[in-house]
Amino acid sequence: MADHHLSRDPAHLHYDWDRSRDPVATVDPGDTVRFECRDAADGQLPEGATVDDVEAVDAPGHAMTGPVEIAGLEPDDTLAVDVLDVAHEGVGWTWVYPGEVGAGLLPEEFPEGAVHTWELADGSATFVDGIEVPLAPFPGNLGVVPAAEGPHSTTPPRRVGGNLDVKHLAAGSTLYLPVEVAGGLFSVGDLHGAQGDGEVCITAIEIPGTVTVRLRRADRAVDAPELDPAGPYAPAGDGPVTATTGLGDDVDEATREAVRAMVARLVERHGISRLEAYMLCSVAVDLKVSEVVNDTVAVTAYVALAR
Amino acid sequence: MADHHLSRDPAHLHYDWDRSRDPVATVDPGDTVRFECRDAADGQLPEGATVDDVEAVDAPGHAMTGPVEIAGLEPDDTLAVDVLDVAHEGVGWTWVYPGEVGAGLLPEEFPEGAVHTWELADGSATFVDGIEVPLAPFPGNLGVVPAAEGPHSTTPPRRVGGNLDVKHLAAGSTLYLPVEVAGGLFSVGDLHGAQGDGEVCITAIEIPGTVTVRLRRADRAVDAPELDPAGPYAPAGDGPVTATTGLGDDVDEATREAVRAMVARLVERHGISRLEAYMLCSVAVDLKVSEVVNDTVAVTAYVALAR
Repeated sequence: MADHHLSRDPAHLHYDWDRSRDPVATVDPGDTVRFECRDAADGQLPEGATVDDVEAVDAPGHAMTGPVEIAGLEPDDTLAVDVLDVAHEGVGWTWVYPGEVGAGLLPEEFPEGAVHTWELADGSATFVDGIEVPLAPFPGNLGVVPAAEGPHSTTPPRRVGGNLDVKHLAAGSTLYLPVEVAGGLFSVGDLHGAQGDGEVCITAIEIPGTVTVRLRRADRAVDAPELDPAGPYAPAGDGPVTATTGLGDDVDEATREAVRAMVARLVERHGISRLEAYMLCSVAVDLKVSEVVNDTVAVTAYVALAR
Repeated sequence: MADHHLSRDPAHLHYDWDRSRDPVATVDPGDTVRFECRDAADGQLPEGATVDDVEAVDAPGHAMTGPVEIAGLEPDDTLAVDVLDVAHEGVGWTWVYPGEVGAGLLPEEFPEGAVHTWELADGSATFVDGIEVPLAPFPGNLGVVPAAEGPHSTTPPRRVGGNLDVKHLAAGSTLYLPVEVAGGLFSVGDLHGAQGDGEVCITAIEIPGTVTVRLRRADRAVDAPELDPAGPYAPAGDGPVTATTGLGDDVDEATREAVRAMVARLVERHGISRLEAYMLCSVAVDLKVSEVVNDTVAVTAYVALAR
């Protein structure tokens, strides 16, 4: 079992999924690989970034490190990705795109846009005075390449993985993916220092960092992403848990209503702005589908931040 | 602060929400009330019930115990419901309605219907040999009456509460509801011994039992149900957590895909039938909205049952 390392040198980066791309490394099943990754803004944001800096970012997609070929892996095999370690580098950003461009869950309510630069400590990061967000870093975007001729956008998740943004894919978890092309062609990027369920403002705490994974063949078939998650499952933070229930004709509407109510709740509870509350939802609020069978659907948002 | 008790005598039951109904009791803010409740089948199922028994149930809605008037409560006040205790009586049922009648999340996939009778112990109940579902009893349906002239169905939840099915409304939690009519007119029913997020097969572990609540006025305004939930938040059970991620064009489709994949996973993992797995999802699987902003939505289902 060998250990490999891929720097974030441009030669190891790509910005779309494409089966025709040559692998930058070939590993054996069971090997570990340490991937250095850029953040979702491709390393183009300065500390203290402004909305203008966000608008000026010029990247054709997520900066993905890879692809890595796993020797012997064939279509219909299952790749198991053991997430062994995720390390940040002390800085991160959360932003809301300006304009009603359709990005995020509630774009029409936050057209002004915003960006927050985080200084990250070991266990938590300060948002505003007294509001600490616990860190639980994980890769937002990881997967193998689709069989269909590319290029394919890095934005949507697919059955082969990609931009899943499942917050429980932290160190200690395992992700299972169906393989569609020989060798799999695994890449990873878009690291998050912390994320709420939904990633509702379209960004988490976006960080550059390093992900170490073991890539192995699993002996069971999967049709879509499955995982043995790492947790934790309680809402992030050490304050008392409070929750808002959104009702709607479908799960989409109920989700929006739950987040709208949580934005109002955070404003009331913490004395922050609505835009700050929207970003806090995106980095620290959990979202559960409470019931989906009673004509009117209920989704509940949970938070436990102290202040 | 007085303690009140309402039996499940027919004089204390109603099957719709209607502001014109006279209260069966009047209490002062801060009083506690112990409500005896029938199960969702109105007490009409025998132990060992069959699908025929389910089809034969004749009830015009959930059997709700109440309504209770809270003296002095006015429209636009907020009612706080402290859930102090929820007790079962040793028996419960989970069922799937036969026919493709649109009940539940995946009715077209389970037209045969099914019913399972549970014997409930203190902490858990056995589904099939070796699969124990932890009990976490809570009232599925609780709320005050809508201002609009009735009668109104007991099926959908509303801003004033009702059939919320939020599993974290167990003992130790508080629910906040906006009041629409003088006195509030609070009722409760549809107790669940355990429920998964979503209640996907349309029933949880449906139980008769007793709920004790404190009814008080809260000094903050709410527009919709809010809660200080009791937890726990980890997936129910003491087995290792495993999860399936469903992808879709919207949250509804992603939810269905996550549950479909979890049904398959439970069949594979536990050697049970698909119908049994569907019922297990409804009583013991959590559902989180992983991301809702990446063009394709991801919902993840979590389970921790041992076997």
